[in-house]
Amino acid sequence: MKNKTTTIALDAMGGDFGPTTVIPAALSALDRHKNLCLILVGQQEALESALQNAGGEINDRLSIQYASQVVGSSELPSLALRGKKDSSMRIAINLVKEGKAQACVSAGNTGALMATARFVLKTLPGIDRPAICSTLPTTKGHIHALDLGANVDSSAESLFEFAVMGSALVTAVDNIENPTIGLLNIGEEEIKGNERVKEAARVLSASKLNYIGYIEGDGIYMGACDVVVCDGFIGNIMLKTSEGVAKMFTHFMKEEFKRNLFTKIAALIATPVLKAFKKRADPREYNGASLLGLQGIVIKSHGGADSYSFSNAINVAILEIETNVPALITKQLESQLVERQAS
Amino acid sequence: MKNKTTTIALDAMGGDFGPTTVIPAALSALDRHKNLCLILVGQQEALESALQNAGGEINDRLSIQYASQVVGSSELPSLALRGKKDSSMRIAINLVKEGKAQACVSAGNTGALMATARFVLKTLPGIDRPAICSTLPTTKGHIHALDLGANVDSSAESLFEFAVMGSALVTAVDNIENPTIGLLNIGEEEIKGNERVKEAARVLSASKLNYIGYIEGDGIYMGACDVVVCDGFIGNIMLKTSEGVAKMFTHFMKEEFKRNLFTKIAALIATPVLKAFKKRADPREYNGASLLGLQGIVIKSHGGADSYSFSNAINVAILEIETNVPALITKQLESQLVERQAS
Repeated sequence: MKNKTTTIALDAMGGDFGPTTVIPAALSALDRHKNLCLILVGQQEALESALQNAGGEINDRLSIQYASQVVGSSELPSLALRGKKDSSMRIAINLVKEGKAQACVSAGNTGALMATARFVLKTLPGIDRPAICSTLPTTKGHIHALDLGANVDSSAESLFEFAVMGSALVTAVDNIENPTIGLLNIGEEEIKGNERVKEAARVLSASKLNYIGYIEGDGIYMGACDVVVCDGFIGNIMLKTSEGVAKMFTHFMKEEFKRNLFTKIAALIATPVLKAFKKRADPREYNGASLLGLQGIVIKSHGGADSYSFSNAINVAILEIETNVPALITKQLESQLVERQAS
Repeated sequence: MKNKTTTIALDAMGGDFGPTTVIPAALSALDRHKNLCLILVGQQEALESALQNAGGEINDRLSIQYASQVVGSSELPSLALRGKKDSSMRIAINLVKEGKAQACVSAGNTGALMATARFVLKTLPGIDRPAICSTLPTTKGHIHALDLGANVDSSAESLFEFAVMGSALVTAVDNIENPTIGLLNIGEEEIKGNERVKEAARVLSASKLNYIGYIEGDGIYMGACDVVVCDGFIGNIMLKTSEGVAKMFTHFMKEEFKRNLFTKIAALIATPVLKAFKKRADPREYNGASLLGLQGIVIKSHGGADSYSFSNAINVAILEIETNVPALITKQLESQLVERQAS
């Protein structure tokens, strides 16, 4: 981290565990990043009690902003937006809007977070549809995937915007000039895919982006490109399916290693290997999805994140502040539009 | 297997390895099923040489039907259909049409197989769109998923047909009366999902099927229902993504166990456990997707299947012949339509 101070607002009430995970994550982040300031947003009692339990205290780098309401995990986004103007989520986003924080992190309801962030912060000029972008592990390292659920039935133009935003993000956070872009598609159909995907392929091919063509589901985890672009319905199914396969594998492995005395001994001996293996595909390592296309940085943590996982989402926010991702998206989009007008 | 003879036509030229995998699989299936007859369909020289290498010979249960052409794996289905009337795939399907075989199995080009099967065999009365259905492992056992790539942009009515076909299949092969049906959807959107999925949910709710509601991607591998229904674009992405995650896990595990002398010893000790683990999620155990909705039984083997895997696809064909899946689909569909007219 550079010398100047970075301030992040944390929705301390979001996620399955609220302040009991957010506050330890905050304390650990403050410990690691000496120029970081955090604002905990939430209900007074819950925050004070969790802060005390975690052995933390208010100081010049850790402040509290009270908010009386909490957005429920299954609350309708539109109702949360209209009815919860004093929610921890809303106040955290307001702090970004007011310039009091440079980013906010929330483990709350994704739909409500996107709707509220979009309403409060507005989209960047030229961006019609913000998208959710996350990092996923691959055999070669990692890949960025978007949209993971903010939009359904995305148009070709939206898919192009997602590609621009993903490209800017990767340039910023991975320091890759002109990252490769793949369009998620299937290989089975006559001329491949549905109409929107085919149209998006034409738009991407004609752009200045480093578009490498269609990739299939298995290509994602082989690291076939730097950014994979898809509609949010598809992306969310892809993400949840991946989680499901990972859970099933873990379940099978536990069952097999617990089968009898011999397998239990084998498990003991293999423990360091299994730990190393687990770490490589651990979703906690990849926690922190970016809501891209907004006039501000908003990071969504997994709702079930523990404090280690939540602190990784804070790290994502820090990185995006340092590299100024929204400005890079605007720049990337302008350069694409100039190219289009010229051609 | 029951006492009467069952005859299956094998497209011996399909898949990545053609007769060198199909013929050993055929010999092993004949060995296991004493009332089974197989017809190998393919090019004379390739078949004879592979048969000799595998130590097999023509007899009253193994015959050969020559076909001069082969459909390429990336050939356009429409071109294969029009231009390859003497392909091994086409002749194998013709044998089903002519009643000389009760099913056919092919590891060839999925699109061409579906297009040819649909053209030659025709769909069942009341079925507008045939679908590809496969078995996937879950933590509880297995699940049937369709459509896995035959249709893109499926209508609500198509999704309903898929549910009927999947329900009939599970009743037949798993002997489950009234299997549970889930509709693949996402959990993030305002009122969830896209328009087609919402409309399909209304149609399914009003039907006599045992529809249990939406399931998300992770629910598939938790075994949330007996049959999961989705559009073929979504299903194919889901399937390929799952393959990708599985490959990545295997890759990570191999790397970790090969890291140093200690981890190599741990791998040796854990070998029986790792083998048992591998078998539970081994795609070879689940090889053999059904092309449902046709007037005949057509089973698609994975293109990269080895002979063990291909022989599992033959097993699927045998089971569907014994339980007469096409007749059950017709019966199930009629009963649904009667219900609809009555209501």
